[in-house]
Amino acid sequence: MKKLILSVALMGLCSSAFSQQALWGGSEIVSPGINDDKTVTFRFFAPDASKVQITGDFLPTVNVDTPYGVTQAPGVADLTKNEDGLWEYTSPALSPELYGYSFIVDGLRVNDPSNVYLIRDISTLTNVFLIPGDYADNYKVSDVPHGTVSKIWYPSESLGTDRRLTVYTPAGYENTEKKYPVLYLLHGSGGDENAWSELGRATQILDNLIAAGKAEPMIVVMTNGNAGMQAAPGETSAGFTPPTTRLPKTMDGSFELSFPEIVNFVDSHYRTSADKEHRAIAGLSMGGFHSMQISKEYPDMFDYVGLFSGVFTPREGVKSPVYENIDEKLARQFADAPKLYWIAVGDSDFLYDANKEYRKYLDDHKYPYSYRESKEGHIWKNWRIYLTEFLPMLFK
Amino acid sequence: MKKLILSVALMGLCSSAFSQQALWGGSEIVSPGINDDKTVTFRFFAPDASKVQITGDFLPTVNVDTPYGVTQAPGVADLTKNEDGLWEYTSPALSPELYGYSFIVDGLRVNDPSNVYLIRDISTLTNVFLIPGDYADNYKVSDVPHGTVSKIWYPSESLGTDRRLTVYTPAGYENTEKKYPVLYLLHGSGGDENAWSELGRATQILDNLIAAGKAEPMIVVMTNGNAGMQAAPGETSAGFTPPTTRLPKTMDGSFELSFPEIVNFVDSHYRTSADKEHRAIAGLSMGGFHSMQISKEYPDMFDYVGLFSGVFTPREGVKSPVYENIDEKLARQFADAPKLYWIAVGDSDFLYDANKEYRKYLDDHKYPYSYRESKEGHIWKNWRIYLTEFLPMLFK
Repeated sequence: MKKLILSVALMGLCSSAFSQQALWGGSEIVSPGINDDKTVTFRFFAPDASKVQITGDFLPTVNVDTPYGVTQAPGVADLTKNEDGLWEYTSPALSPELYGYSFIVDGLRVNDPSNVYLIRDISTLTNVFLIPGDYADNYKVSDVPHGTVSKIWYPSESLGTDRRLTVYTPAGYENTEKKYPVLYLLHGSGGDENAWSELGRATQILDNLIAAGKAEPMIVVMTNGNAGMQAAPGETSAGFTPPTTRLPKTMDGSFELSFPEIVNFVDSHYRTSADKEHRAIAGLSMGGFHSMQISKEYPDMFDYVGLFSGVFTPREGVKSPVYENIDEKLARQFADAPKLYWIAVGDSDFLYDANKEYRKYLDDHKYPYSYRESKEGHIWKNWRIYLTEFLPMLFK
Repeated sequence: MKKLILSVALMGLCSSAFSQQALWGGSEIVSPGINDDKTVTFRFFAPDASKVQITGDFLPTVNVDTPYGVTQAPGVADLTKNEDGLWEYTSPALSPELYGYSFIVDGLRVNDPSNVYLIRDISTLTNVFLIPGDYADNYKVSDVPHGTVSKIWYPSESLGTDRRLTVYTPAGYENTEKKYPVLYLLHGSGGDENAWSELGRATQILDNLIAAGKAEPMIVVMTNGNAGMQAAPGETSAGFTPPTTRLPKTMDGSFELSFPEIVNFVDSHYRTSADKEHRAIAGLSMGGFHSMQISKEYPDMFDYVGLFSGVFTPREGVKSPVYENIDEKLARQFADAPKLYWIAVGDSDFLYDANKEYRKYLDDHKYPYSYRESKEGHIWKNWRIYLTEFLPMLFK
């Protein structure tokens, strides 16, 4: 056969009209550039801009006025422009962590065109980068055996629709006949079944802790706790609609009452050890509320409960059988107390006082629990740390 | 228990420092707004900008000079500004399709902050939207039973590393003991194991065609054809590195020689009908090249072969046993010809002549094949259409 003269480069360049622009028009800008001393250099090419700034959670927070009072927001730093129109900013040395950032160009918030890694949090997309070391080494993809991550749909009779789960099965699951314990891992308000595997880095944390022998191999089921949603935004028949926190059936008891359907589906579709001793439930914020409510509603279901920056009381005026007789139900749950009832919160979390109040309630009733107080507030940094600390305590 | 006064709204607002900004600072801008007459209105809030434009594949293409000659790129349209600083552009009525676009603000290319849906193609992220109807109805998530999509790692002895696959198992797979046929679906240069399920909408196309009874329920295995990569960018121990087409071991025969490892892994980990009659292989561009090479290298493996905008000849100077004795190997393959050998290409594809030449070769040797010529060129629009047409012909 006659050979065509055709370079792989050309094939790549032509793979789509858009990629042409990226590859032909593109420069070799490295941003973010993580330097050996753990400082990070951000670069943005904009010869005609008069001001380029960066905002991100690696910068000291500033106070911001909101309709709900003063809150903290990430700070802002100025980039400086060189003679070629390239703007730069180098951060101080940063501690290990997964960070997010955006640029602000003449007042307009934009993503970093040199960094294709973005993670969505509710309706905001921000670029991310990772400074390795310490805790954050668990957030990296490492050269260890990797679990399988599946998006699988289960039928919910009570909610009248098919709904999506993210399921992690540990490395080796497909090669044995072994049964595994299960952790149900729940997101917060505005999140969905993708939140823990994306911003939460749960897949990487599990791979790394299991490979290091620090956590038991386990199945982890990440649910969608918005009972009015089938799946994450864009993954349902509603199409590419904007994400919102204004969802129907949120924290109205529907999700809690539907939860046994999920457990039954998982027990009948995966090789699980289907008993209380081998089941855990944990969640952040609204997911902490759900974990507290579900574990007390079905007191024989979970021996491990994790409440990360949790809410503990129903919204004003919401009626559901789930939220009735809470005192009696908790008494029933703690009569055969979970092996672990773990509460974690940051010292500047807006839910700090709510957590303190709930702990007082548990203390007053002599219900056993463990408590972990961290620095900072209601942020993913803390939830990743809590998950990293919680997993090694399970199923031991 | 005393109730806390705490609204769900507040919880959502506080779920991260970044989301605060999105929800408090956010406006109610709808962009893109898909109107009843299939025109689309794009909106961008930038009171201080002096020029806002949009570029996307829904606009007529324009000619662009490149180091490789003149090529076509998406056109550009101007938005107009109203008194509130909101810029708008309304397109003509658009045909059904998945489209991509970006804004250009005073010369700077930016994503649409009102649209969180972006898809990466090599190193470019563009916003997407979908005009339903016709073919494009298959690209929607519909209210039909959904297959499971898994990211699973297999060990490659020949490449010396674990590597990731995207595997689609059809709805019902988990509820039967049935065995399924398997399609291996391969990406192009610059793509990875995520390409077909993201830009290719393969998951939606499969769900929809299977639910409509137009395609057999099948397992679809989306490989990573870059033998020098473990997995998609960001999903390997290399970390969040920029995607590139300049990869080692690309089209050097390594991937083709490693392919039986993938087939063996799939046959031993999924309920497959493990014979030629129940195996198909198809790919786009470089994936067409791989499908052609692999199917002739292992002539007893695949009864269905799909070459979408394919390349047919190795790069100049590349040596591999895979690329030796091609005439003899094709003669061996066609001695027991595949049930379907399907070639598809667009009439303005830069590989049109290469396809014509390969078809002449097949004609000259009286090797049977089917041919589909579409409009337009080397673009995802065509590959989605080819997949939609190819699937119903399999395993019948």
